[in-house]
Amino acid sequence: MSETPTAAFSIRIRVRLENRPGQLGKLAVAIGDAGGNIAGLEGFEAKAAHLDEDVVVNCTSEAHQQEVLEAIRALEPEGIELMSWEDRTFAMHQGGKIEVLALSPVGDRDDLSMAYTPGVARICNAIAADKNKAHELTIKKNMVAIVSDGTAVLGLGNLGPEASLPVMEGKALLFKEFGGVDGFPICLDVTSAEEIIETVLRIAPVFGGINLEDIAAPQCFEVEERLKELLDIPVFHDDQHGTAVVVLAALENALKIVDKKMADLNVVVAGVGAAGVAISKILLEAGVPNVIGVDRQGAIWEGRADLNPAKQWFAENTNHDRKTGSLAQVMPGADVFVGVSGPGLVTADDLRTMGVDPIVFALANPDPEIRPEEAAGIAAVIATGRSDFPNQINNVLCFPGIFRGALDAGATTITEGMKLAAAEAIALSVPEDRLAADFIVPSVFDKNVAKLVARATAEAAVRDGVIRVRR
Amino acid sequence: MSETPTAAFSIRIRVRLENRPGQLGKLAVAIGDAGGNIAGLEGFEAKAAHLDEDVVVNCTSEAHQQEVLEAIRALEPEGIELMSWEDRTFAMHQGGKIEVLALSPVGDRDDLSMAYTPGVARICNAIAADKNKAHELTIKKNMVAIVSDGTAVLGLGNLGPEASLPVMEGKALLFKEFGGVDGFPICLDVTSAEEIIETVLRIAPVFGGINLEDIAAPQCFEVEERLKELLDIPVFHDDQHGTAVVVLAALENALKIVDKKMADLNVVVAGVGAAGVAISKILLEAGVPNVIGVDRQGAIWEGRADLNPAKQWFAENTNHDRKTGSLAQVMPGADVFVGVSGPGLVTADDLRTMGVDPIVFALANPDPEIRPEEAAGIAAVIATGRSDFPNQINNVLCFPGIFRGALDAGATTITEGMKLAAAEAIALSVPEDRLAADFIVPSVFDKNVAKLVARATAEAAVRDGVIRVRR
Repeated sequence: MSETPTAAFSIRIRVRLENRPGQLGKLAVAIGDAGGNIAGLEGFEAKAAHLDEDVVVNCTSEAHQQEVLEAIRALEPEGIELMSWEDRTFAMHQGGKIEVLALSPVGDRDDLSMAYTPGVARICNAIAADKNKAHELTIKKNMVAIVSDGTAVLGLGNLGPEASLPVMEGKALLFKEFGGVDGFPICLDVTSAEEIIETVLRIAPVFGGINLEDIAAPQCFEVEERLKELLDIPVFHDDQHGTAVVVLAALENALKIVDKKMADLNVVVAGVGAAGVAISKILLEAGVPNVIGVDRQGAIWEGRADLNPAKQWFAENTNHDRKTGSLAQVMPGADVFVGVSGPGLVTADDLRTMGVDPIVFALANPDPEIRPEEAAGIAAVIATGRSDFPNQINNVLCFPGIFRGALDAGATTITEGMKLAAAEAIALSVPEDRLAADFIVPSVFDKNVAKLVARATAEAAVRDGVIRVRR
Repeated sequence: MSETPTAAFSIRIRVRLENRPGQLGKLAVAIGDAGGNIAGLEGFEAKAAHLDEDVVVNCTSEAHQQEVLEAIRALEPEGIELMSWEDRTFAMHQGGKIEVLALSPVGDRDDLSMAYTPGVARICNAIAADKNKAHELTIKKNMVAIVSDGTAVLGLGNLGPEASLPVMEGKALLFKEFGGVDGFPICLDVTSAEEIIETVLRIAPVFGGINLEDIAAPQCFEVEERLKELLDIPVFHDDQHGTAVVVLAALENALKIVDKKMADLNVVVAGVGAAGVAISKILLEAGVPNVIGVDRQGAIWEGRADLNPAKQWFAENTNHDRKTGSLAQVMPGADVFVGVSGPGLVTADDLRTMGVDPIVFALANPDPEIRPEEAAGIAAVIATGRSDFPNQINNVLCFPGIFRGALDAGATTITEGMKLAAAEAIALSVPEDRLAADFIVPSVFDKNVAKLVARATAEAAVRDGVIRVRR
């Protein structure tokens, strides 16, 4: 599916056309013949003998970018000159994607004497007398650390902390855009879960929340658990719970389409890493009686050897019938398939063995466990992690709102109740009259979602009694 | 001197005046009688029977704020009603002083697919293949960690990391305002120099520079030295070197006033903490032959017992005549006094024992070693750390520009040559024709200074051969 030209591989070219009719047409034809999609014409500039034009072209790969550029260069004898080009994704990342700006202007001596010395000493003293005041009088009120050790960057594996930074910056950008939350990337050069925990504890004074990200399983479980225990601010491993919350929301709406109940479901979860474990847990909490997890070795059952603690928990709390065997062997009769594993893991034939009106969430990114085209006509509801198909399961529907709500409420942790409330809010943000098999989750650009999630999360925090005491 | 009303203790009051002549006058008289200074009238709003007015009043202390408020409340029978008030310094700090904002907008799916998945994976892969690319393609290009453990917050002592955060936020704000540098506060909950070093090494992937701040001596020396050794990005303890650079700049200009040369100077430095040690070092490098340091126990000399490593260095490299005794005993004949200690440490009589045209830098904040009024007529040049006297020695003249220059040049460290160049640039930013005893350092609001410092620093980095190799 990576053959569709996309903005991720887009280029901006600047071309000079001789000023006579048909030149732009020739250019467009050449780009089209080379497989490029013209996504925009920008910065048109007419001069006497020629026109300068900026053209945005979506491509499919870096090699394809070069093919498109070659096709344009070949037009030089015809009066079309390639003057310059840039890779738009790389251009966008030049110098990073976020900046730190002043909330208070420092225009004169009076401003300086309040924001800095001597006035700031009054604030320091106030906080020294009562540490809790940091939650009001500093960035701690709205600042979330986006913490990664770079061991599980996107689907790419252990790329190291530097290479994880662009993802964490992207996350910071989404935190601000959708939740009004300030996020700051903390990419750690460490070698163990213990070092992550220790470092986060040390930097915690600055932050009102900790969002863990792209940390490999099973270390991520220990890191989150221990930090939750040791800190009095919300700690949230987005790869686990962000995904789980959105999956639950999507499933709630999917069940309305197929007219089933949580209490009657058999669910198969392929992939028992961070996301798979969290999804399974939240489904059990939401009342699903039967989940079967499948990893590379097949179904997880109590008694299987080689289980790490997370999978051991899994074995004890799921698959009550102790089914064994491959994914294909546990699919028959399942109502729901959730894939958080890898591309092409299930076939249309596998889906045909499922119960009536199967629900298929094929969330591996960028290439899902089964292509939606293949599942069409078999599955009643299909969701993926991709933006170019209906029903995109994307964490951005959850994390900005859930932290917004937690910070607004002054929550000291994120409870199961808060996560369930967030899922409910996401599900309900699809209006009942628009709910359909191809519209079970709201658009990631629906800014209302984060507001609804924030409100629901904050209310749940109050209900669960996890609000920081204010003096 | 804290009896001068200041913005640091200012309040904003909202009053309702009966709409008849003379009411505002009555209010102003009452505020003046209570010792408050009206610094501004804002937000005037006329209604039928009354006027609402916002008044900013500078006070001298929190107790004084209450006296002013009481004086206003007493006017109620005369048709002047205090409706509300706020402490402006606390109001300015609500929710902190900085925020994290997107540099790239995320307006649509195309933006999202470049800034986040799937496009961001290309950037991650590029950096995984060559870590150095993080200096171009991430916030590392322009991001400096402002690191403190809160053990020496301003002049207030060990207040802890939370209480140091407002200072570090202020610093971030100044970094951006004057140097266009993104600064982020890292306030550490740690108990040793070793833990500071370890933690900074772990978070270093995100940052292009490390600014150490408000870390107590002597730990600060070890922290800086070790981090300089272990990291390939600039590390700069501002309390040491920022102060030293600005003192050197001020001294260069002061010498033009009194017509003396570095090579002929006897300098007494009172206070042998972070700033005192760094000032002494840079003066020696600049060619001053003789420095005598004085701490609470008196002059530092080689052979004195009870010296920590920093002071031992001091003893070996200064005070060649091994003078002993109190500050007053080593002052006679000195050309320059630099105080980085505490209030009221020297007297006018001490200054009278100095050489001709003594130069007095009394930098203790907020209350200097000797009040400028007392030194006037004795010292030829007087400088303090305060904004309400001429010649304010303020680090903000150095740190934004020196980091700007280091980042622009891709410097891997900050050399002695870069510091000397920065000092020279600050000194030269006072135009020759305006140089005077009361104008030896530029205004902290002169935005040109940081630009000149940046250029000089970057050039010195190139000269010193500390530029990161680009592939």
